[in-house]
Amino acid sequence: MRNGDEYVISGHKWWTSGIGDPRCQLLIFMGKTSPTNPDKYKQQSMILVPRDALGIKVLRMLTVFGYDDAPHGHGEVLFENVRVPADNLLLGEGRGFEIAQGRLGPGRIHHCMRQIGVAERALEAMCRRAASRVAFGKPIADHDVTLERIAESRIDIDQARLLVLRAAYMMDTVGNKSARSEVAQIKVAVPNMTLRVLDRAIQVHGGGGVSQEFWLANAWAHSRTLRFADGPDEVHRRQIGRLELRKHA
Amino acid sequence: MRNGDEYVISGHKWWTSGIGDPRCQLLIFMGKTSPTNPDKYKQQSMILVPRDALGIKVLRMLTVFGYDDAPHGHGEVLFENVRVPADNLLLGEGRGFEIAQGRLGPGRIHHCMRQIGVAERALEAMCRRAASRVAFGKPIADHDVTLERIAESRIDIDQARLLVLRAAYMMDTVGNKSARSEVAQIKVAVPNMTLRVLDRAIQVHGGGGVSQEFWLANAWAHSRTLRFADGPDEVHRRQIGRLELRKHA
Amino acid sequence: MRNGDEYVISGHKWWTSGIGDPRCQLLIFMGKTSPTNPDKYKQQSMILVPRDALGIKVLRMLTVFGYDDAPHGHGEVLFENVRVPADNLLLGEGRGFEIAQGRLGPGRIHHCMRQIGVAERALEAMCRRAASRVAFGKPIADHDVTLERIAESRIDIDQARLLVLRAAYMMDTVGNKSARSEVAQIKVAVPNMTLRVLDRAIQVHGGGGVSQEFWLANAWAHSRTLRFADGPDEVHRRQIGRLELRKHA
Amino acid sequence: MRNGDEYVISGHKWWTSGIGDPRCQLLIFMGKTSPTNPDKYKQQSMILVPRDALGIKVLRMLTVFGYDDAPHGHGEVLFENVRVPADNLLLGEGRGFEIAQGRLGPGRIHHCMRQIGVAERALEAMCRRAASRVAFGKPIADHDVTLERIAESRIDIDQARLLVLRAAYMMDTVGNKSARSEVAQIKVAVPNMTLRVLDRAIQVHGGGGVSQEFWLANAWAHSRTLRFADGPDEVHRRQIGRLELRKHA
Repeated sequence: MRNGDEYVISGHKWWTSGIGDPRCQLLIFMGKTSPTNPDKYKQQSMILVPRDALGIKVLRMLTVFGYDDAPHGHGEVLFENVRVPADNLLLGEGRGFEIAQGRLGPGRIHHCMRQIGVAERALEAMCRRAASRVAFGKPIADHDVTLERIAESRIDIDQARLLVLRAAYMMDTVGNKSARSEVAQIKVAVPNMTLRVLDRAIQVHGGGGVSQEFWLANAWAHSRTLRFADGPDEVHRRQIGRLELRKHA
Repeated sequence: MRNGDEYVISGHKWWTSGIGDPRCQLLIFMGKTSPTNPDKYKQQSMILVPRDALGIKVLRMLTVFGYDDAPHGHGEVLFENVRVPADNLLLGEGRGFEIAQGRLGPGRIHHCMRQIGVAERALEAMCRRAASRVAFGKPIADHDVTLERIAESRIDIDQARLLVLRAAYMMDTVGNKSARSEVAQIKVAVPNMTLRVLDRAIQVHGGGGVSQEFWLANAWAHSRTLRFADGPDEVHRRQIGRLELRKHA
Repeated sequence: MRNGDEYVISGHKWWTSGIGDPRCQLLIFMGKTSPTNPDKYKQQSMILVPRDALGIKVLRMLTVFGYDDAPHGHGEVLFENVRVPADNLLLGEGRGFEIAQGRLGPGRIHHCMRQIGVAERALEAMCRRAASRVAFGKPIADHDVTLERIAESRIDIDQARLLVLRAAYMMDTVGNKSARSEVAQIKVAVPNMTLRVLDRAIQVHGGGGVSQEFWLANAWAHSRTLRFADGPDEVHRRQIGRLELRKHA
Repeated sequence: MRNGDEYVISGHKWWTSGIGDPRCQLLIFMGKTSPTNPDKYKQQSMILVPRDALGIKVLRMLTVFGYDDAPHGHGEVLFENVRVPADNLLLGEGRGFEIAQGRLGPGRIHHCMRQIGVAERALEAMCRRAASRVAFGKPIADHDVTLERIAESRIDIDQARLLVLRAAYMMDTVGNKSARSEVAQIKVAVPNMTLRVLDRAIQVHGGGGVSQEFWLANAWAHSRTLRFADGPDEVHRRQIGRLELRKHA
């Protein structure tokens, strides 16, 4: 809420990632400045908030499964009458949604690209482990259930990678808005794929796979959050479905 | 078996597709001419056999989930001492495997390309049907389970199409042999994908979906055979798995 | 519509099963006698219609995948001003829904019980086939992908059988109405389970599995219809979900 | 290795659960006393080891998807020439396998019973959350994708519970050995089922579902370990498959 030369900010925010890091000096806060604007895409603004402003209280750091991701961390944060100079506003009042939209496409594809890399590394780890671990008198790589898991992972990854490359090409050539089905598709397909590949890799690694001995469990926990981040799978599938139906209306 | 200027052919063949067609005049027969050749890839030959040669007996026409695919059809055929001029031999004795290999890559990708088309048409039919069919007071297109099925189908198809295009590109640029993992991948991924999409489309069409009222059931039955044709899924997954392991050996 | 001592029947019915059988002499027709009754459960009646009554026209026999199920068969039937004595009415006007409800529970569990038998036979066929068929130098029963498919089938069948027995026990002890979640659960779970087991059995049988050489493809086609009969999976899941939510309201 | 009146123990053990608890005073150690015994089921013994014996070194506490499960905890423990009185031997030399076997059936069913409870609580949490959380203008409990997830969970849990009860009945009536397929079946089916139900519940809870705000993520991590504990799924499925094949040999 604007008050003279300042904005006064109140709110309760979950998943403020990075606030645990001692280097964190600045927050980007998104909130409603014009809650009654009839155009619901113009009610929001973004503003820069110094980390040390009065009224900011980190209630606790949230864990992802059991990981606290320290020092980066994810805060549950209370903002109580935090006062910030009006000059800190980004782009202009009511333009928060616009800014968010601009980064959503790139943000999503960036997550997906990294997920492809995670899955690829997991498959490599699975192959190496399968070659060295023995069960029933031979390396588990020689058991055809293992070969099947490896093959399914190879197919899963390659399909997903191509889908990401297609989305990137569409974003570059026709723009984020026209490519919104393609971006929504990777947002659904890729993290689910990475979770499947990681789960198979963990299974091949045995008990060590769920512990800190390998990086797999940590990657799984992080990847699981991507089925919510920027909207849950259910919301994206709904959008993809609607866009598809529109072609045949 | 060669006998003077002729080959004498005996054998019992399943799935001789096309033999039911009255226009069928010529069969390509593959059999062993050199069963003791230590190079097991040189034991086989291919030869042209006139449909009306003596000793060819169609035992019965095989059905595919109840479809006889007449007049084309799939015969279970007995060859008893069928005599064919030696000149009918294709390419040369012992070169049957070589000929077969040459067409396997193209044959597989051809099936997969057509399957992509089948799946795309099924998704279109699903969308149209969902828009017109009402349940619980609104078109089933407005139920989010339907939107979810449509979205999953869109993602499934697009991933599979890109995988097929990648395989085609690899075949063109590095050749069938180097692209054998890529070809095996589409052979597994595509028919399974088409079956999923068809099954969802059938479900949206209700009882009519399994009958001759729509083309979906017939397409499903045909697509199901492609999980066997040119080797079952299990064999291809095994090969993909082995090729993957080799990268990390 | 009642007309003096008679009812005059008009309608277009799909899936009139058994009408192809030469022994068929009597149809049970369900239709609306009181379409404006505010109690929507009292709009329907059931009446006996002689097969040879004037105005009954079998438009065609419907196929299930490619099976015509002759001579039994499934007719698409037109009823045009078919006149039937009013005495043929079952139980009384407006009681059709009541009659239907009475048989739905038993009808559904009867289908499910038979499906358990089908799945059990399919697993037996899969085991016998796996023991005799050789791939890569040993019976496919010795490949652990086959063992995995057999194990999953054993687990699937046993879980489903127990669920059916539980539903039967509930129907006997607390009645169909109180057991409606339990009955809906088997209606969803069992045919889907049987389809999975049959599909695995077909895969183990190779090409023969989709043909008339074995009974598996035919059983698959029939089982697929049970995901629609008496309401599609989607309707039953919706009801189960609602009943579950009610427990925690 | 026996040495006079003592056994001298050396070994490197993973997943020594409970060793982190300050109340822990006694370990049960299983190791080989007769590694050359031709009967491989008689090579192992069990012995009681005081927690404060010389030579026991906890290398680190293992995490499970980031959870340290303190103070209970899971240790990676080194035993270096730990000396224990021979009287501490349980039951007799070479009888370790026998003791382990005796508890495996009960141990497994105990885990499965608890998993049923976890899944049941997760379904309850999912229902309550779905009733209170709003998306697209109505509680997500009114979206049919949610109803579908709830219905599938209800079916999954009830099938699994009945399978556990059946295994318990078999253990009581025919004994652990005769019931080993039934016990292996629940070992595979139940944790996988609980993981599915928990995953759906987490998804309905949104971001909070992966954090310490709810118990779901922690339960998921624990349940995931049960796909390894007492042997991975793959080993159990293999055994179930072999036992099934034996019926038809």
